[in-house]
Amino acid sequence: MSEPTRALHLVARPEGLPKESDFEIRESILPDPEKGQVLVHVRYISVDPAMRVWMSVQKSYWPPVELGDVMRAAAIGVVHKSAEPALPEGTWVSGMFGVRESLICDAKSLRPFDPAPLPDERWALSLFGGTGLTAYFGLIDIGRPQPGETLVVSSAAGAVGSAVVQIAKQLGCRVIGIAGGKEKCDYVVEELGADEAIDYKREKVDESLRLYCPQGVDVYFDNVGGEILDTVLRRLARRARIVLCGGISQYNATGEPRGPANYLNLISARARMEGFVVIDYLDRTDEAIAAMLPWVRSGKLRSRIDEAIGIAEFPLALRRVFTGANFGKQVVKI
Amino acid sequence: MSEPTRALHLVARPEGLPKESDFEIRESILPDPEKGQVLVHVRYISVDPAMRVWMSVQKSYWPPVELGDVMRAAAIGVVHKSAEPALPEGTWVSGMFGVRESLICDAKSLRPFDPAPLPDERWALSLFGGTGLTAYFGLIDIGRPQPGETLVVSSAAGAVGSAVVQIAKQLGCRVIGIAGGKEKCDYVVEELGADEAIDYKREKVDESLRLYCPQGVDVYFDNVGGEILDTVLRRLARRARIVLCGGISQYNATGEPRGPANYLNLISARARMEGFVVIDYLDRTDEAIAAMLPWVRSGKLRSRIDEAIGIAEFPLALRRVFTGANFGKQVVKI
Repeated sequence: MSEPTRALHLVARPEGLPKESDFEIRESILPDPEKGQVLVHVRYISVDPAMRVWMSVQKSYWPPVELGDVMRAAAIGVVHKSAEPALPEGTWVSGMFGVRESLICDAKSLRPFDPAPLPDERWALSLFGGTGLTAYFGLIDIGRPQPGETLVVSSAAGAVGSAVVQIAKQLGCRVIGIAGGKEKCDYVVEELGADEAIDYKREKVDESLRLYCPQGVDVYFDNVGGEILDTVLRRLARRARIVLCGGISQYNATGEPRGPANYLNLISARARMEGFVVIDYLDRTDEAIAAMLPWVRSGKLRSRIDEAIGIAEFPLALRRVFTGANFGKQVVKI
Repeated sequence: MSEPTRALHLVARPEGLPKESDFEIRESILPDPEKGQVLVHVRYISVDPAMRVWMSVQKSYWPPVELGDVMRAAAIGVVHKSAEPALPEGTWVSGMFGVRESLICDAKSLRPFDPAPLPDERWALSLFGGTGLTAYFGLIDIGRPQPGETLVVSSAAGAVGSAVVQIAKQLGCRVIGIAGGKEKCDYVVEELGADEAIDYKREKVDESLRLYCPQGVDVYFDNVGGEILDTVLRRLARRARIVLCGGISQYNATGEPRGPANYLNLISARARMEGFVVIDYLDRTDEAIAAMLPWVRSGKLRSRIDEAIGIAEFPLALRRVFTGANFGKQVVKI
């Protein structure tokens, strides 16, 4: 009754952008699940910027993926065979499954979820998964925006950024999104409801910030680092908070990463810059879902999903996240 | 009854280290004070790293000193002639007097103080002036060290740093001071009571930090920025706090200032970096003095003062602060 499966293994540490030859698909045979185990068929794999950090030898909140190991990834799937009564066949589950088509898991390492209240199952990886939790707790716990404050978010059309725009609007902020290209900027304003969007590919970000944030930036939710972070540092309001969520502009840098040269403005602005990691908030998932679900139901919180198909497409899907070719939450469908 | 006086005017914006020709001594005649005014004889002028920022066109918490204006400075002096009954002759006063020998002031711009409880009057510029308030509130309000935590401070033999070392010890921290040269490092450990000192001129700071802070750095009080900040960022403990007090290594930089390239470690450490400005705490001066005075009386909080004489020495005294030639709080005696 054992079944064959395929997984994507990391076989080289990328220099710069990850490429196909950094990975290798390997086949194996899965045994039947033993007592307390289940066999999961993976349905959707989450593609996230942080994966680039896990692929390097950099110190991070998790150890690097070892060469030869299956590439680490959050994913959702369905229990196909069960040797654990609490997780019958057909149960939807999420976990750090890695980039693979199916796997045997200890039942206790899985989080079962009910897709019924979600627009579709993929939302368990976007707004109701790590992506949404990142946006929600980064805002609530680190940025702490007050109604009427001005919030700026980079990668505003991206998975986390688009959630930040919408949640911040629900919290009563004036929201300015930074994104690349007219199509994404239109989306940020027209679909997500931002007050303004700045197209960093065409506009001088500093001048646009001056125009749109005459009183300065109260909260900056930073997904990119680099030059945009440095520019926002020049326009901080008194007691501003910078939420350090990621530094996508730096993850593929092959030289010394670029530090924010204007960081001393944190002194004159009495401002702070603070990092966080979403895994610290997993046990508060229910709180975030309870807050977001009504917004989803009333159409005020949307999630756009960009789907690639098959584990062989994973390397390209990951590249798209860094080149900005994706539009919305990037997933790989199995 | 009018009297002649001299003041040091800023006549050029320095490039790199300030030099004598950036200033000019000008003489003038002071009239008698009018109603509500006093004539103050300045006794001691505070020499602070932040002055370098005020001399530039950089945005800061105060506007730049205009070319031709008297150089801005905190100072203490004695009322010599009074037309304000609340401030009789002989009263010690402090204020932003600038680098000058005497001046006419509105009485309400002055803070009178009683030097009797102080070891000597100069302490009103060091531990019981902006320097001490900077150390105290930077620690208490921004760094918030807990007993048993590991605190690292740069410029540990300097005016603010030496106060930070001693206050942090009183708060129950393990304290590691970073300073330049054996004499200063000996002072930091033997006189100030730090647990360890790191001589950045001789040691590899990263290796010494690893040795002295095996559990990582909980609080870093940063007076210098640059390479040392970048090194400490590599060794942060979970939920570390970086108190951004100053960036003395960057103030004289003529090129692009150096940003902390390792700032993304704030994410994996869930850490924050926060700036503050001492002028926000002036109305809490009494609170700081009440906390520090018992430590001073019991000999647990000391202040070393480095004195230059005469306003003509100010430019050299300011340079000494940047080259590390001074030892303790730098003042100019009139």
